[in-house]
Amino acid sequence: MSDLPKSIRINEEGPREGFQFEKGPIATARKIELIDSLSKTGLKQIQTVSFVPPQNVPGMADCVEVVRGFTPHPGVSYTGLWLNERGLQRAIDTGKLDIKGALYLCASEAFLQRNQKRTFEENLAAQHALAVLYQQRQIAVESCGIMAAFGCNFEGDVPIARVLGMLRQLLDIDAQYGLGLQSIVLADTMAWATPLSIKRVVGAVRDQFPHLRVGLHLHDTRGMGIANACAGLEMGVDMFDAAVAGLGGCPFAAHSGAAGNVCTEDFVFMCHEMGIETGIDLDLLIESALLAEQIVGHALPGCIMKGGSLARLRKERLRRQP
Amino acid sequence: MSDLPKSIRINEEGPREGFQFEKGPIATARKIELIDSLSKTGLKQIQTVSFVPPQNVPGMADCVEVVRGFTPHPGVSYTGLWLNERGLQRAIDTGKLDIKGALYLCASEAFLQRNQKRTFEENLAAQHALAVLYQQRQIAVESCGIMAAFGCNFEGDVPIARVLGMLRQLLDIDAQYGLGLQSIVLADTMAWATPLSIKRVVGAVRDQFPHLRVGLHLHDTRGMGIANACAGLEMGVDMFDAAVAGLGGCPFAAHSGAAGNVCTEDFVFMCHEMGIETGIDLDLLIESALLAEQIVGHALPGCIMKGGSLARLRKERLRRQP
Repeated sequence: MSDLPKSIRINEEGPREGFQFEKGPIATARKIELIDSLSKTGLKQIQTVSFVPPQNVPGMADCVEVVRGFTPHPGVSYTGLWLNERGLQRAIDTGKLDIKGALYLCASEAFLQRNQKRTFEENLAAQHALAVLYQQRQIAVESCGIMAAFGCNFEGDVPIARVLGMLRQLLDIDAQYGLGLQSIVLADTMAWATPLSIKRVVGAVRDQFPHLRVGLHLHDTRGMGIANACAGLEMGVDMFDAAVAGLGGCPFAAHSGAAGNVCTEDFVFMCHEMGIETGIDLDLLIESALLAEQIVGHALPGCIMKGGSLARLRKERLRRQP
Repeated sequence: MSDLPKSIRINEEGPREGFQFEKGPIATARKIELIDSLSKTGLKQIQTVSFVPPQNVPGMADCVEVVRGFTPHPGVSYTGLWLNERGLQRAIDTGKLDIKGALYLCASEAFLQRNQKRTFEENLAAQHALAVLYQQRQIAVESCGIMAAFGCNFEGDVPIARVLGMLRQLLDIDAQYGLGLQSIVLADTMAWATPLSIKRVVGAVRDQFPHLRVGLHLHDTRGMGIANACAGLEMGVDMFDAAVAGLGGCPFAAHSGAAGNVCTEDFVFMCHEMGIETGIDLDLLIESALLAEQIVGHALPGCIMKGGSLARLRKERLRRQP
């Protein structure tokens, strides 16, 4: 495990992924409460909402109110998601979010058509259009992503060559518009990855594009989330999306069992126990996870909030000893 | 991942672990139904019941009836658990179980005292007594185990040197009574292990005792089960305990969040996707997992039974294509 990073950066996606997915309704004040709770844990980046039409995602109808309501914590970058210029403008207008551009391709055309009603070609054109927009608005685009990079419920296995080809397309856009891309997030949108495929795909990307920082966005639908994250760590990946308590799911993944991102506090637990710094206070994060469960009103998949952290047990043991 | 084994052996512990733990009551006929269902999946070893006093474990009061009731499937080894001579005799009297001796030490004295009311010394003496019994009865003792080998909720971290010392004690018993030990199962009884500690402990055991086959018994209380199993595979471990649907838990682990063994079908899924043979039909195993959930009457932690196997999606895709 010599490639384990010394420290990693976690992008918390629980509020956005979770409240987008939950059948709800969840009161705006409670969404704000969760973001405020997460703000105190040491997380450096929290994705708060997505700016999408309420008829598409009813749980995000109050996205502007949620952003207005939370209390920014020093050192935390609060972000939002948008899919077009109108969404971007709404995000900018809040005046409270870090506006970071991002470009996304999708390695499965079948999923792309279901999810965004676009062909490969149309999606590539849309990313060019976004790049122009970011260039005009002078919005930095540090990161890009490839969805369904490990497989697709509708299309099956995704060849590594296709992922590498899409990455080249993204780098072409970067070069053409001078965006300054620094990182690529590989998303296992429909939970096809295993530790072996994580190592293969990440290895291939790092071989061909050694200057790019690699991030992982791992859904846990098939229970491989933590194992896949660990495989990423072993490949030196130091940037992960995660969702507190395992909030979330994918409404477009074609089955009701679709789970959210890898659970933040379970992942943080593993990192800390393996000597990898996250900057996060695990006990505070567990409190946020318990709050998330209370807010959605049903059990969430996180384990550490039920099983307890070891740091706490070690401390209690020290207190018991003379 | 060059050390990945080509094939592995899974010891299914779901019926014993699950029905011992569930608050129940669960009808004897339904316990038998689960064992019969598991028998058809390709599993080669199923631990059916434990022969313990009903006042200690009410869910095992019908252990003899359960063993009498299931239909043995050719090629499957059915086993039971016992803690003393009386239990062993009850297992033998069923006439249907593979009677395999086993010796267990525990790396945490605090847990040992809670779980079996014994000191280290008393437990070592008890294993000597068991060895004498197995020798007298001419019962083979191929396997031994070390409980709490990765840490203990009551005692904290367990030094690797202690695990190696206990293994030496077990090998001394083996030599003294000519038992023929071939394998050692390292049990993460209270879910303290991470992929890193799995690699360290398994590595140390393999370094010092290269002739011993290593097995892992991994509880999933802190969500590390599959990641830990993967770390074991990467160290060449080819023998795993697992529990269908993630049945089970540990009544002595000091908290209500204690989870069962790593989920069999989630683990089988990972193995198959990584090219490791298990001899198991994953679709049939998923049916057993769904049956287990129906029998206990509440959600169980397994993911693949909700998320679905990829083999099935690949097949459906092939059918759709001309």
